[in-house]
Parts: sequence; C-alpha cells; structure tokens
Amino acid sequence: MKKIINDPDEVVSEALAGMAQAHPDLITVRTKPDYVVRADAPVEGKVALVSGGGSGHEPLHGGFVGRGMLSAAAPGAVFTSPTPDQVLAATQAVDGGAGVLHIVKNYTGDVLNFETAAELAAAEDIEVRSVIVDDDVAVKDSTFTAGRRGVAGTVLVEKIAGAAAERGDSLDEVTAVAEKVVRQVRSMGVALTPCTVPHSGEPSFELGDDEIELGIGIHGEPGREKVKLQPADAIVETLLTAIVDDLPYAEGDQVLLFVNGMGGTPVIELYLAYNSARKFLSDKGIEVSRSLVGNYITSLEMQGMSITLLRLDEQLTELWDAPVSTIALRRDA
Amino acid sequence: MKKIINDPDEVVSEALAGMAQAHPDLITVRTKPDYVVRADAPVEGKVALVSGGGSGHEPLHGGFVGRGMLSAAAPGAVFTSPTPDQVLAATQAVDGGAGVLHIVKNYTGDVLNFETAAELAAAEDIEVRSVIVDDDVAVKDSTFTAGRRGVAGTVLVEKIAGAAAERGDSLDEVTAVAEKVVRQVRSMGVALTPCTVPHSGEPSFELGDDEIELGIGIHGEPGREKVKLQPADAIVETLLTAIVDDLPYAEGDQVLLFVNGMGGTPVIELYLAYNSARKFLSDKGIEVSRSLVGNYITSLEMQGMSITLLRLDEQLTELWDAPVSTIALRRDA
Repeated sequence: MKKIINDPDEVVSEALAGMAQAHPDLITVRTKPDYVVRADAPVEGKVALVSGGGSGHEPLHGGFVGRGMLSAAAPGAVFTSPTPDQVLAATQAVDGGAGVLHIVKNYTGDVLNFETAAELAAAEDIEVRSVIVDDDVAVKDSTFTAGRRGVAGTVLVEKIAGAAAERGDSLDEVTAVAEKVVRQVRSMGVALTPCTVPHSGEPSFELGDDEIELGIGIHGEPGREKVKLQPADAIVETLLTAIVDDLPYAEGDQVLLFVNGMGGTPVIELYLAYNSARKFLSDKGIEVSRSLVGNYITSLEMQGMSITLLRLDEQLTELWDAPVSTIALRRDA
Repeated sequence: MKKIINDPDEVVSEALAGMAQAHPDLITVRTKPDYVVRADAPVEGKVALVSGGGSGHEPLHGGFVGRGMLSAAAPGAVFTSPTPDQVLAATQAVDGGAGVLHIVKNYTGDVLNFETAAELAAAEDIEVRSVIVDDDVAVKDSTFTAGRRGVAGTVLVEKIAGAAAERGDSLDEVTAVAEKVVRQVRSMGVALTPCTVPHSGEPSFELGDDEIELGIGIHGEPGREKVKLQPADAIVETLLTAIVDDLPYAEGDQVLLFVNGMGGTPVIELYLAYNSARKFLSDKGIEVSRSLVGNYITSLEMQGMSITLLRLDEQLTELWDAPVSTIALRRDA
C-alpha cells in the first residue's frame, strides 16, 4: 500500500485538520464528534442541509459545505458510515429554526445512523426530514445496500436542494425538490483498477491487467460484470444505455450530463469520455443543457468513472445555475 | 495500459472536443492548429496571456483559460511541446492591441517553440514578452530541460499575472509581476507511482512496491533519489526543507502554500499532507496566509504530489484574491 499518510487511524482527522486550515473562509471543522460545518452556521430562518457518509470519497461531502449547498457534513472513517452522534451534532449545529434536511446515500449503515440521529434531533424539537439517494442503476441490493446504491447523483441533490434552501424555500419545498432530483437522476460506474482502504492495506477487489468492472460501486462493491478493456466509446455506450433505458430518458429530454472521476483517472480521460457521451446522447435526441466533469465523488485512488444523467426542467435548471461557494464547487453570483 | 481512450492518436483532440462542449460559456476550442481560447477573446485594450505545453497535465493549461487568468492555451500532444504554429495562432487570436505575455514552463522544446512563435508574432507587429517559469528546486538540468524545470508554480504565475492583465495593467507591468512571482516561488514533487503515456503504452519509469521518488519531474524525469516509502510528515519535511532552504524563505515570511496532486492521489491525502506542511511551516515561523489544495498540474494518473511556496506581499495577495472564472479555478467577485 502506497499512500501519503502517517497513521491509518489518523487519516481522516489529519485530513480534516488540513481542510479546516486551508479553507477557514468557507468551513469550520468541529471535533469529538467530527463534522464539517459552514463557517457562518447556523443561518437563522433558513432550512439547513446535512449529509455525510464514509470518508474516501472526497471532495464529497465536506467539499460541498458552504453557501448554496450543504450546511454540514458528517465524515465517517474511510468507507464507514458516520455515527449517529456525529450526524446529531451536525444537525444541532446547523439548525436555524426552519428545519433540517438529511441527504443520505442508500447504504444500510448510513440510513440507520441518520435515522437514529433524526429521532434524537426530533426529541429536541428540531424538525428533520430525510431523502435517500439511490441513483445507481447497476445492481439491486449490494454488499452494503438493500435496493440501489447512492452514488454521484448525490452531488446533484446536494447542489439543487442547497440552492432551494439558500433562497429561503420551506422544509417541505426543499424536501420536495430533493426528492424530484432523486426521481430524475440515474448513474452507473466503471472501474479500471481497485482501491485500497488505509486500514486494510490490501486492494478491495481484483482486476486482471486487461480487465475492467462495469457497474462498480464506490466502495468497490461488485458491479454487473468484469469484461476486457474496451475503447472509451464502447464503455460509455454500455453505461449510458443502462442509464437511459432505466428511467427512461427520451428523445427531446433536456439533461445535465455529469462525468465523474473515481479519483485516479486523469482529467483528460474524463473529457474524452464526456465527448463520447455527447455523441451517444446526440444520436438519441437527448439534449445536454448543463454539464459537470471532474472528480467529485471518488473512491480513493480507484481509476474509473461514473456517468450520471439528470432530467432537467426549468425549476431544476434555475437551482443548478444558482451561485454556490464551496471548496469543490464554486460559481459566481 | 488501462485508459479510458479510443485511439492514442486522438486522445488530445477528443478531450479538447469534450472540454469545448462542457464549457461553452468559458472557452472555445479552435482546431488546426489546436488551441483553447477565452470565449470572449480578443479583449480589446487589455494585455493577453498565452501559455501552453504538453497535454497530460490537466487542468493545466486549458482549465485556466478565462476571465482573470489565461487568454489562451496551446496544448501539445501528451508530454510533447506545442508547435510554434499553435502558439502563434493562439497569440494572434487573443491580441487585443495591448500586447501578449507568453508564460512558458522551462522545457527546452517549449522555450524554443514559444520563441519561434514570438518572433513570428513580432513580424506581424504583435508585441510579445515571455516569462520562463523554473520553480522546481529538485535538480538542475534534467531530461528535457537546461536549468530548472517549470512545475506547479506556473499555476500561480498564470493566476497572478492574469489578474494584473484583467485590471488593465500594461504589458510591462504584467510582465514584471509575472517575473516577481517566478523569483518568489519554489516547488518540489514526489512520485509514488509512474504514469503511462498513451502512445508508449509503458510506464515512464519504475518504482518498487515500497519505493517513492523524491524530486520527480512532471513527466517522470528523474528526481533526487528513490527512497523507501515514508510517513507523510517525513515526505513533507524533505520537500519543504529543500524548498525553504533554496530561496530561502525566512521566519516572518507570509506565503501561499500550494499542495498539488499529480493526478492519481486521493484528495484526502493532499489535505493530510497540507496539514503536515502547516505544522512544518509553523515550527519555522513561516505564516501561511493563502492556500491551494488539489489536482491542478498533473502527470496523467501518477500518484504523488508537489508542494509549492510563494512568498507573498500586498501586491501579490491582492492579485491572488482577485476574481477568476476558469474551468478549474473560480472565485466569486
């Protein structure tokens, strides 16, 4: 295992300490229990958004804390759910009196621990709603999941719901728009290489020198199949066919196309895959009106990518375009 | 070789086509010869900035084209200098009558081809100045370089000189501030794994399973030495000791600390290394007043990082803080 770390037990806390010092204008990191919170939290009178999950997917979620996106993020150990007390503390810290929305990726541990935290918060008269993101079309039920896994679509839920909260929408309204994004977003990924969790020291799965895994999970959970390495156009066709057929997306749809790197893939390959995806969607008569390309939800140093489509309408487009000030996503006012 | 590509000959052109479609609000890509240009170029009456170099270092340089940074970028083949006709066409496209500054990383091919382009542009009465970036303290003279290599400091030169051009500074003034950044910036890198150029299909160098290379170049050029894998604190101490002793940076200095990923390193490790760097600099009495952490100048899928220090003063801080709208670096007005 080759990593730039000191002690596997301290990877998350040292990285959080670094993030706090690098971005004091945007975030504050609180410890024991650990969470990342907007520097100006709580924002009185506005709905607050809390997400979280295992570490190792950076910039998700801490990199999306800030004006127009998340109010706080609870980072677990690498690939491990955050504890209920982390989520509760984050929820308490950001509550501005208008309620708190929990955005939860669909992994059994995350769902349970956010539920527990929501119950504890409710006992303190904080109004909490939850939305579960399950955008991965690759498989039903998986290593850590009942139903579908929550993957890159989570970034879009956080951005769009965050914009709704920022402009002053009510908890009902913010929850409704988050649920709408979940209904209209689908994703699927591919791995070229495995990744190694610092604690285990061994790759999370194996792939031959000429093999890739279609439908991989963001923790290396099994996908649909291992196949020989293919050209980018063929990989993209496989992912997008599964995605488009699932919702389904149809001719005339306007979509946001998100090509996400798994951490170890060069940006040049992500743009190349984006180009392949544009050709595929153009042939289907699906119009790409918004785009996101980069490493936004990663799996440590895994090489690979995921593709995400979100069907847009006027409401979602306006919220997507709204200003945002976070470490990983910034857009001018 | 495992890459998300179609044909090695088309990697750069397909990635550029993807970039153009993903970011039409920020950039335009022109072909034959290929270059990336601000969507609103030329900007009349303002100094224009042109950079470029081999592809494979994305987001450098195309990801830094936009308001407040580069006017255009000329991307060569992977790890190959852009041709003089690319640089000339980019220079012609952005000239707004106030002159053009070429920002060139110190590699022999880049320097020669930018010189040729500058001479051809001068023959067309375009006033061109050049600044050569050579911030890598690791080695003198290298595989593709006489003198020191130009590495991550280039990002800071482009941002700061771009801000000076954007506010309307003259060509003399923009050139002077770029040269000042070059004088005050130093970098050094480390590789944990090699990378593979698509055309060659083989790793550019070899490292044992427990080995890292200190002082690596961004194309895998030899560094100072191969050593056994060390804790992050020790790696950072080695890099920063070389950097601090070189300029030298002194107690009381205010600096920008830039921890840059080589492409395949997880963001969590970059923040962990940033935390190590803060401890080291604090012990030396060097104050970090600005920060940049992420994958900004990469070496394809190489795992590793570089650390860069820039000594700041009021002028450089103000220009660093100025708004910027590019693919990879955005900051609110």
